[in-house]
Amino acid sequence: MRKIKLPKGFLAGGLHCGVKKKRKDLALFYSVKRCKVAALFTRNLVKAAPVIVAQKQLKKKGFARAVLVNSGNANCMTGRRGVEDAKKMAKTAAKLLKVPADEVLVSSTGIIGKFMPMKPIIKGVKELVDALSPYGLINAADGIMTTDRFRKIVTRTFTAGGKKVVMTGVAKGAGMIEPNMATMLCYVLTDLNITSGALKKALKSGTEVSFNSITVDGDMSTNDTVMVLANGEAGNRAMTETGRDFAAARKNLAEILTELARMIVRDGEGASKFIEVNVYGARTDSDAKKIAMSIADSLLVKCAVLGEDPNWGRVGAAAGSSGAFVDPERMEITLDGVKFFSRGKAANPSRKKKAHVFKKKNSDITVNLNAGKGAAAFFSCDISKKYIAFNAHYSS
Amino acid sequence: MRKIKLPKGFLAGGLHCGVKKKRKDLALFYSVKRCKVAALFTRNLVKAAPVIVAQKQLKKKGFARAVLVNSGNANCMTGRRGVEDAKKMAKTAAKLLKVPADEVLVSSTGIIGKFMPMKPIIKGVKELVDALSPYGLINAADGIMTTDRFRKIVTRTFTAGGKKVVMTGVAKGAGMIEPNMATMLCYVLTDLNITSGALKKALKSGTEVSFNSITVDGDMSTNDTVMVLANGEAGNRAMTETGRDFAAARKNLAEILTELARMIVRDGEGASKFIEVNVYGARTDSDAKKIAMSIADSLLVKCAVLGEDPNWGRVGAAAGSSGAFVDPERMEITLDGVKFFSRGKAANPSRKKKAHVFKKKNSDITVNLNAGKGAAAFFSCDISKKYIAFNAHYSS
Repeated sequence: MRKIKLPKGFLAGGLHCGVKKKRKDLALFYSVKRCKVAALFTRNLVKAAPVIVAQKQLKKKGFARAVLVNSGNANCMTGRRGVEDAKKMAKTAAKLLKVPADEVLVSSTGIIGKFMPMKPIIKGVKELVDALSPYGLINAADGIMTTDRFRKIVTRTFTAGGKKVVMTGVAKGAGMIEPNMATMLCYVLTDLNITSGALKKALKSGTEVSFNSITVDGDMSTNDTVMVLANGEAGNRAMTETGRDFAAARKNLAEILTELARMIVRDGEGASKFIEVNVYGARTDSDAKKIAMSIADSLLVKCAVLGEDPNWGRVGAAAGSSGAFVDPERMEITLDGVKFFSRGKAANPSRKKKAHVFKKKNSDITVNLNAGKGAAAFFSCDISKKYIAFNAHYSS
Repeated sequence: MRKIKLPKGFLAGGLHCGVKKKRKDLALFYSVKRCKVAALFTRNLVKAAPVIVAQKQLKKKGFARAVLVNSGNANCMTGRRGVEDAKKMAKTAAKLLKVPADEVLVSSTGIIGKFMPMKPIIKGVKELVDALSPYGLINAADGIMTTDRFRKIVTRTFTAGGKKVVMTGVAKGAGMIEPNMATMLCYVLTDLNITSGALKKALKSGTEVSFNSITVDGDMSTNDTVMVLANGEAGNRAMTETGRDFAAARKNLAEILTELARMIVRDGEGASKFIEVNVYGARTDSDAKKIAMSIADSLLVKCAVLGEDPNWGRVGAAAGSSGAFVDPERMEITLDGVKFFSRGKAANPSRKKKAHVFKKKNSDITVNLNAGKGAAAFFSCDISKKYIAFNAHYSS
């Protein structure tokens, strides 16, 4: 197993405690020093208990020392008892870590509507605290997974105020990301010294081009969480959003989030093909995003990619129903580099050119609206019989 | 074959002209007298040529003598030539029927992006005009179908101003209705004498509870059309929206549209189960509709119904992400009459009760928000591997 060292001052671990039958189901991220925290949570009004608790904690304090995550049980739609359980999880870890209880955040993912099996969790937390290590990231990454087929870790190093900074992100996705309700959890740990305001700004813009461009937007799942913890151990002077090097830090964070988001799409249940939808020439960026999302969300488009059928009419129709401005007389549709529709007319590419479309692992759908300067990209995957089979038999 | 007589003064017919390989692909509805017309079209910005043409005609005139429909080619994204072709179709039929060209409306459904094969169409129209008959409805119903497995016809009779009125609707749907872009065409013919304003009002409210409650809303397909033609041959005094009997006429129209909408859902490609989503206790009717639609649209909910798995958490999560107000502490979720979630807590029904859920052809998902008086119903169907297979291999 490859060894990955965490950014300075961070420890982590993961193990199997008994929420799931066999696979690892508990993870802990810990910092020797208080971290600035920026976080984005689901906008679903049915929120899991740990999301409710963490939002309150962060509103009150805005920093943390640790994050405890379990997989296998979402602790969602579990009422007051669910909230008590989430708090108890935080408290148990806090006591053992000797930090204030409101500086331990909790996340959960898994089945909705069942009470958390607290006994194995509490036993697990104890073992986990003892097992914390600067090399514990791989175990932690495994501990947060549900139906993921592979773990998702991305690391970047860069310089800030002359100091070397390490930034490492870990995520879980799976479930079918498009178009519905897969819980997405993501934690980025960094030794960067940065102000809360700058950290929040960087997270917000980074999430917009990554997780919010794979339709794992907050509207969907009950447990979605993206969090950045910065403990300042790199030793740079506190970075502000106007200071130098901020652009680099923000870019690195956005790249980490985008890479993780792409990995999540690639790991979509039963997905065989990765689809990148690029829209440009829209009236505004927001229009471009609506159009790209409408195409990426279209079941008929996904089926066309699965069937390796360059059915560009479905792309055009999905664009037209996005709610954003589209004029077919100006629109152009290109699939895997082959133009199929141009300003009101079919482009009729040669049979030879057509033959290559949607045949590869990575498919590209590009739409030019010729109506302005708005642009956006969206990542998606095909849908397959496996997805249906999987989700019909995922027992509740 | 059963014989269905059209309402007084109407003739129809349908035949195979050669747009499709074998099945009937052309239909004509004709009235011996001018009809008042109310129509609703897709709100997709990528509109098929016949939709563009018909909207202009109706804006100018508001009445018609005939509707010509072809299946197999949508005449969409075909630019100026598509518009010319649609006009030519109307003109050809008008000349043979000896009516003004702008009193013949045209509809198309089928593949997007190919030019209409005008030669077989024009030849077909000639034959069709000769074959018009008061008993031609069944042939016409067949002529408008694409992947439909069965034809969809609903008739009602009622009294208006002491006169017997006949109202007959015919529709085509298929494609996967949920959640995307199946072209839905529907024509209602009636000998009722009614003002334009009253006819429009009745169609609007009837469509709201029928076609707009199966997510075949105008936002989706490029060709969606619902049309009512009233020729007044029943001989009643022109009905207004304040007059007596209007309520009955409106109710009958709504029932016809609802029955046709349900038939379309039942005929969804590969669908094995019919799902009725009922939401009540929402803050407003509009909130209730958003929530019902979010549940009906959820792929994970559809998969749960297919798998006969009472995964009520997916229902709750879909409700929470609808954009409407939902408070889990007040929400109740009932599946096929068995309560699974009640005001913040799992209801834990007995194993015996659970065993029956989603086992039948008709499934019922009911959500009570306990937050107001808003209510709405939505019809949907499960998704199956067949759907994926079908749409991956529907050749473009």
